[in-house]
Amino acid sequence: MIIHARVESSHLAGNLLGDPSERDLFVYLPPGYEESDRRFPTAYLLHPGGSTAEQLVHPATDGERWLPPIEDVFDPVFGRMGVPPMIVVIPDGNSRWGCGQWLDSPVTGNFEQYVVNDVVAFVDANHRTIPDARSRGVFGFSSGGFGSWNIASRNPDVFCAMAVLSADSFLDMTHKFLLYKYLDSIWPEAPNGPVDGNEWSEIVYDYAACYSPNPERPPFYVDLPVAYPSGELLQEVWDRWLAFDPVVNVHDRLDNLRKLSGILLDAGSNDDYNLHWGHRLLSHHLDEAGIAHEHRENPGNHGGRANERYQMALQWLSQVLDGD
Amino acid sequence: MIIHARVESSHLAGNLLGDPSERDLFVYLPPGYEESDRRFPTAYLLHPGGSTAEQLVHPATDGERWLPPIEDVFDPVFGRMGVPPMIVVIPDGNSRWGCGQWLDSPVTGNFEQYVVNDVVAFVDANHRTIPDARSRGVFGFSSGGFGSWNIASRNPDVFCAMAVLSADSFLDMTHKFLLYKYLDSIWPEAPNGPVDGNEWSEIVYDYAACYSPNPERPPFYVDLPVAYPSGELLQEVWDRWLAFDPVVNVHDRLDNLRKLSGILLDAGSNDDYNLHWGHRLLSHHLDEAGIAHEHRENPGNHGGRANERYQMALQWLSQVLDGD
Amino acid sequence: MIIHARVESSHLAGNLLGDPSERDLFVYLPPGYEESDRRFPTAYLLHPGGSTAEQLVHPATDGERWLPPIEDVFDPVFGRMGVPPMIVVIPDGNSRWGCGQWLDSPVTGNFEQYVVNDVVAFVDANHRTIPDARSRGVFGFSSGGFGSWNIASRNPDVFCAMAVLSADSFLDMTHKFLLYKYLDSIWPEAPNGPVDGNEWSEIVYDYAACYSPNPERPPFYVDLPVAYPSGELLQEVWDRWLAFDPVVNVHDRLDNLRKLSGILLDAGSNDDYNLHWGHRLLSHHLDEAGIAHEHRENPGNHGGRANERYQMALQWLSQVLDGD
Amino acid sequence: MIIHARVESSHLAGNLLGDPSERDLFVYLPPGYEESDRRFPTAYLLHPGGSTAEQLVHPATDGERWLPPIEDVFDPVFGRMGVPPMIVVIPDGNSRWGCGQWLDSPVTGNFEQYVVNDVVAFVDANHRTIPDARSRGVFGFSSGGFGSWNIASRNPDVFCAMAVLSADSFLDMTHKFLLYKYLDSIWPEAPNGPVDGNEWSEIVYDYAACYSPNPERPPFYVDLPVAYPSGELLQEVWDRWLAFDPVVNVHDRLDNLRKLSGILLDAGSNDDYNLHWGHRLLSHHLDEAGIAHEHRENPGNHGGRANERYQMALQWLSQVLDGD
Repeated sequence: MIIHARVESSHLAGNLLGDPSERDLFVYLPPGYEESDRRFPTAYLLHPGGSTAEQLVHPATDGERWLPPIEDVFDPVFGRMGVPPMIVVIPDGNSRWGCGQWLDSPVTGNFEQYVVNDVVAFVDANHRTIPDARSRGVFGFSSGGFGSWNIASRNPDVFCAMAVLSADSFLDMTHKFLLYKYLDSIWPEAPNGPVDGNEWSEIVYDYAACYSPNPERPPFYVDLPVAYPSGELLQEVWDRWLAFDPVVNVHDRLDNLRKLSGILLDAGSNDDYNLHWGHRLLSHHLDEAGIAHEHRENPGNHGGRANERYQMALQWLSQVLDGD
Repeated sequence: MIIHARVESSHLAGNLLGDPSERDLFVYLPPGYEESDRRFPTAYLLHPGGSTAEQLVHPATDGERWLPPIEDVFDPVFGRMGVPPMIVVIPDGNSRWGCGQWLDSPVTGNFEQYVVNDVVAFVDANHRTIPDARSRGVFGFSSGGFGSWNIASRNPDVFCAMAVLSADSFLDMTHKFLLYKYLDSIWPEAPNGPVDGNEWSEIVYDYAACYSPNPERPPFYVDLPVAYPSGELLQEVWDRWLAFDPVVNVHDRLDNLRKLSGILLDAGSNDDYNLHWGHRLLSHHLDEAGIAHEHRENPGNHGGRANERYQMALQWLSQVLDGD
Repeated sequence: MIIHARVESSHLAGNLLGDPSERDLFVYLPPGYEESDRRFPTAYLLHPGGSTAEQLVHPATDGERWLPPIEDVFDPVFGRMGVPPMIVVIPDGNSRWGCGQWLDSPVTGNFEQYVVNDVVAFVDANHRTIPDARSRGVFGFSSGGFGSWNIASRNPDVFCAMAVLSADSFLDMTHKFLLYKYLDSIWPEAPNGPVDGNEWSEIVYDYAACYSPNPERPPFYVDLPVAYPSGELLQEVWDRWLAFDPVVNVHDRLDNLRKLSGILLDAGSNDDYNLHWGHRLLSHHLDEAGIAHEHRENPGNHGGRANERYQMALQWLSQVLDGD
Repeated sequence: MIIHARVESSHLAGNLLGDPSERDLFVYLPPGYEESDRRFPTAYLLHPGGSTAEQLVHPATDGERWLPPIEDVFDPVFGRMGVPPMIVVIPDGNSRWGCGQWLDSPVTGNFEQYVVNDVVAFVDANHRTIPDARSRGVFGFSSGGFGSWNIASRNPDVFCAMAVLSADSFLDMTHKFLLYKYLDSIWPEAPNGPVDGNEWSEIVYDYAACYSPNPERPPFYVDLPVAYPSGELLQEVWDRWLAFDPVVNVHDRLDNLRKLSGILLDAGSNDDYNLHWGHRLLSHHLDEAGIAHEHRENPGNHGGRANERYQMALQWLSQVLDGD
């Protein structure tokens, strides 16, 4: 059963894109929730870029391929697969250019604060959670995996575990070309903001709004890490992007990471964007620092096994989170 | 809950390919089955070519994309979607070259007789079905849709309804080129049976074993409808293939079709093999003959929405089959 | 050296599409022409569909791939390759929907008559040709190969040789699906003429204007061989298309074919449209009728070796045509 | 007319791959060469990776697409296009793993020295060249463009002009992913040298043999810039690669570059490997340094217009080189 609510967040208010500060919040209550009065561990699912919480719950039905409602993905976990019940929370992190990347930006909004403070408080107040970091985990795929890393590695007092699935990472190898594909897509015009139907423009401005926002530069409020028309990489801006990259900021967050009960890295070995290499490198750095974690791979491409990995992540979280 | 059994069939025994006559049989019992003693309508799901009953129940986990176990597809139908419970039967129709196409062939085996007689008898004897044609339907996708058409349009006294999903049809337009792709794949060698890893060879020999078997012609026991090396279409052999095509044999089965409680045709408007045109043409012929049916289309390609269409087919069957 | 002229044709005048009756005509004079006063054999090159004579001579320069001017293709033939010099004539057969297919149609114009009468007369009158069928050949690729077949097999008194390169043929296998791709491209709208930028619509209407014209049916003056929305193939219209298919009309033209000095069939074994199978079948029928011909294949796809095949065809024609 | 010779080079002798030190050398003599006794400017054409001098002169004939012999590309330049005649020299730079990249490496051989010394001396001794740097230019496509940059920017006393066509450049953006595609192609095996038929392995080892050779590390004599299995980029090795990148070493070669009579940069705006961005960036750096050059783009992809660009480069060189 999924409960729908709307949550107003002061941390999203005033974002420069003018996106709404009131957001959907979906809470999945596992089988047996109604029949008991006990409290449950809670897993927070951060959706990927280009999606919404609503779209996980009620996927579009007009595609060549079918996506099941997320409820049909969760039910077998706690039924057929026998995983002990958990509450699963699905906040909304959509931005008009794609995704707030689950981090704090003056342009897109402070999505990290919103999750860590507003969403957690709302859920703990309204549902029978175990309101403790030891019983609270976060997981997500693609930008949602990136967000899981960002939020748990910075807030170990709120979330004690993260399952990072096919997360944006190793940007210097995996994401740099996007800047040039964007310039190609508008060439010989100069950059002038996101263009409807031009996905390169949307993803580059979306990332820039999150990674290199610049409130002093209307109307788009971003610094782009590439010069036009020369194509020169602007290293100081690019470094601001890299500062959000898990393979980079892992080194600065070791104390936090050591506080976590569990870290799971999982990616498809055929990831279309080579993100399995980000995961391998991240695992390598964690090993170097002596930080325990699980590093799994699956035969998938970027998105083809996402729902199955959600199931796997819930199974893993149920073993890591305190159940009572 | 899915119950596994093995069924021996005299109708499969002696097939010239030497395939086993004992087969897997899976029976899905809907939620509430155990708690009641009532009888349920029954839907028979015929799997597509290149698959097995086992693979529907326990899909391979090594692909770039994930397929859920069929139980996770059925459970929401009778749970979240509120469809009245039915038993769902999953017989095995695999052949070593792909699929027995759910029809009678001396080469691959008499799959039609096996389903209509052995499987139905076994299920009615072992589970609380309503053992009557009015409460028995058949559905399937691709070769399974083709098989549903073949079995229901020839045995209205056993199955009163069929949901035909993206079925092989209009072969003269959709399948003819396969013969030439096969010859290209072995050129300049002459046809010499299915070749491991050569999917063109397997599908052509598989179809031929079902549509134009020739027990007098070892070692492959088929007539191919194309001459080598000229590429001439052998019309008399091709006509034997077409005799199995729903858009062709519909004209000879009108009396049977009129006896059915329901006919559903459903295909993706972006079917990779143009099978939506077979469905449109079949619907046109049914209209011409004044035979009531439902003709639906969805936005899918050939296989991308198959599991959703199974759910839709079950919902439709539950309205057509006698429930008590 | 290429000489440009304009030729007015009474056979093109009055076409129902309103296309011009005055056309470009390019005549390639081989190295040494100017220095001699002798007469030369003549090869007529019929361009493919979607092109023009002008585009062979001055190819567009804005593509991802480069096409050389046809003069740079011909010069090495008579230079480096040492082929005895011939005049090469390049008439224009463009139609506003693609190509007049080098046949007579009241809708697109009588391109066969135009070539056989007007173009040949103009060339013989204005250049030092050997004005005799024994010294006159025709060749072309794709629709130009189809046109070469059509014109030579019907006018052996004008052209004594044809080099048929990757010609449209075996339409029942190779072209039928186009009708359905067209309907898909406009679905659920009904057919309503060629649509700019919709290549399926243009090719289907172009073929119909040539193969199944209907002057009584404005505004498009064609019969389509497929019913909307049923998708039923209209066999009597389709048979009108097939009547132009070399693998069909070969049987009716045996006497003419026997009069020819040479027939060359050449196609790429990887033809994207499976036209190599049309060529194989045509060769088979010629063999059955005891008609001498050469049947060659090359490793190309449909268009990737077209210029080389022009060189090869000229080399072949020089051996077949009377040189003095 | 093309003259074939074999040239022995002490600079190639002793390469660790054991490749031959005697190489093909083709010299194209323009129309009119034989009839005159004058001397001609000379253009050196460096072939791309994966090819040979022989293959430019006599292209393989077994592909889906046709490539004309290079003589048929040059003849129209000096004929139809009216470019003043030049001698064109085609040395061989093949290595068993792909290409010696026209630079000096103890592993693949000293291809720069070989061209600058042996080839130039041989050509000047055996043909009527104008044996002076002001009359000597170099051009090439892809690795041949990279080689043209390398050789002219380091040897302005030998070559006064370079036409750099779609050259390998901006490696940090365009080439880094290759390392990971290679690891993916052999995963989970460890790197172990070039593997026949595995193009990722061949290109990575080929580059490494040229950019980061290590004679102390048999049997492959290279340092790879990526660690296995972590995927960590080994920055000090990668920096050795970058040192060969035109967008990097341009800054160190400004004095040499100022000595040149002409620099032409040309790339397709749809280059499959994003090399147009390398060219744009290189042009930007040249502009910054106040070094005159021409920066052209064409609508091509990486290789689709290569032969036309050779023609364009010859036309440009004829205007830059001293003709008498």
